[in-house]
Amino acid sequence: MAPKLGIVAGSGGLPAKLAEKCRETGRPYFVLAIEGEADPATVAGAPHAWVRLGAAGTGIKLLKEQGVVELIMAGALKRPSLASLRPDWRAAKLYAKVGLRALGDDGLLSAVIKELESEGFTLVGVDSVLTDAVATEGCYGRHRPDAQAEVDIAHGFRVVDALGVLDIGQSAVVQQGVVLGVEAIEGTDALMRRCGTLRREGPGGVLVKAKKPQQERRADLPTIGPQTVDLAHQAGLRGIAIEAGGSLVIDRDEVAARADRLGLFVIGCRKPS
Amino acid sequence: MAPKLGIVAGSGGLPAKLAEKCRETGRPYFVLAIEGEADPATVAGAPHAWVRLGAAGTGIKLLKEQGVVELIMAGALKRPSLASLRPDWRAAKLYAKVGLRALGDDGLLSAVIKELESEGFTLVGVDSVLTDAVATEGCYGRHRPDAQAEVDIAHGFRVVDALGVLDIGQSAVVQQGVVLGVEAIEGTDALMRRCGTLRREGPGGVLVKAKKPQQERRADLPTIGPQTVDLAHQAGLRGIAIEAGGSLVIDRDEVAARADRLGLFVIGCRKPS
Repeated sequence: MAPKLGIVAGSGGLPAKLAEKCRETGRPYFVLAIEGEADPATVAGAPHAWVRLGAAGTGIKLLKEQGVVELIMAGALKRPSLASLRPDWRAAKLYAKVGLRALGDDGLLSAVIKELESEGFTLVGVDSVLTDAVATEGCYGRHRPDAQAEVDIAHGFRVVDALGVLDIGQSAVVQQGVVLGVEAIEGTDALMRRCGTLRREGPGGVLVKAKKPQQERRADLPTIGPQTVDLAHQAGLRGIAIEAGGSLVIDRDEVAARADRLGLFVIGCRKPS
Repeated sequence: MAPKLGIVAGSGGLPAKLAEKCRETGRPYFVLAIEGEADPATVAGAPHAWVRLGAAGTGIKLLKEQGVVELIMAGALKRPSLASLRPDWRAAKLYAKVGLRALGDDGLLSAVIKELESEGFTLVGVDSVLTDAVATEGCYGRHRPDAQAEVDIAHGFRVVDALGVLDIGQSAVVQQGVVLGVEAIEGTDALMRRCGTLRREGPGGVLVKAKKPQQERRADLPTIGPQTVDLAHQAGLRGIAIEAGGSLVIDRDEVAARADRLGLFVIGCRKPS
């Protein structure tokens, strides 16, 4: 049997999907829910404990007591300020080691992963458990991008690549060659809402989402789900393009069904290497 | 006497400043106010006409009738969709020539400037008329960035440089090493308002604004003024850093006075070449 899985639960629907998968396959698991981030519905009925993001020592102790061997980080964590983090001794030691002054999410997550591995945990990616969630190449559903949308998608991937290198964000919205918005810490949902008010007349824009080039695969892979399709539709977008192999699609069938119903395309694109 | 100046007026306070300068120096001028962009207060009392952005032919004809020789583009123009632009014959010819499908502001502005020069106008930069508005190196006012703010400023310039190369935007907000937001077409004011709700506890962030590396100097130089200082303060920022020599400061004395009163720094930084 697979070893006990510890799920460090940030925001969004991913932690719940992982817990569900564990139950389905009979795999033992434990959810370490991050206060202010994890959805309480995620942990309802699951073996779990709540911890502050700054309480690294408590978290590690709990996971060890639970006999967790493999560890997975699921869902986004808002990077807090040092002041609000109130790091415990363990966390403070880590921050002192990595230096926080000019560190983006990516640098921080890599450091956290390294530290957890030094504690004896094996960090695995969400894609190793939800194997069927990794974005595949080609269209989900029956709608396809037209020539203008293809130009917007290509430009969008150039933009998110540049954002990613600087560890800024994973998403951009492009309409008719114009970058309507780019994501920093506000997240993809807020980006789309804003772009709904910034859009121009004529054919709508495209949401493009990709992994940061240097991103640690075991943390915070770009993720879309049915709700992303709804929000894209509300923002007047025509479609969503994600990085095949480098992002996650939650509820693939529902994503395709909803895209078909709302008239959007959802496409996985292999990044040119 | 200096030749008659045509002021193509987009949004913001810059066109009014130029008209004021012409009146002060007794220089003849004419304002071509872009509908939906120029502030009606700008043209009150000034010789002017309103035109649609898409009515290039009408605009050129008016400027020639007025005997305009030198032409200045002042203030931002929201890039509209082709549909809402309703280009007249002259504009359509231009768009057909430059191709609009994947063209950002910068490419479009360069093409427009080239076209206007082929009509016999001499395009000049705002900085050639408002010579004292070009951002100088060093602090405006008495507050100075501390060590953390300096790190944020340096990171911010890296970020806006990458944005600029892709013709996305000119501004970013960085707080404690984290990029809170980056500007696309929403503009700097909207960026700051959003970052006000995204900020973390502890020392506030910094607005960094710079010219796009390849940007045509005669169009849409990054600009700040007293209102920028007010908005930065409202968003919880600690200061503003602009590119010395590559951006404009409107009402320099008032910017410094307001920054002093609100406790913000405003600093012009020479970009490393």
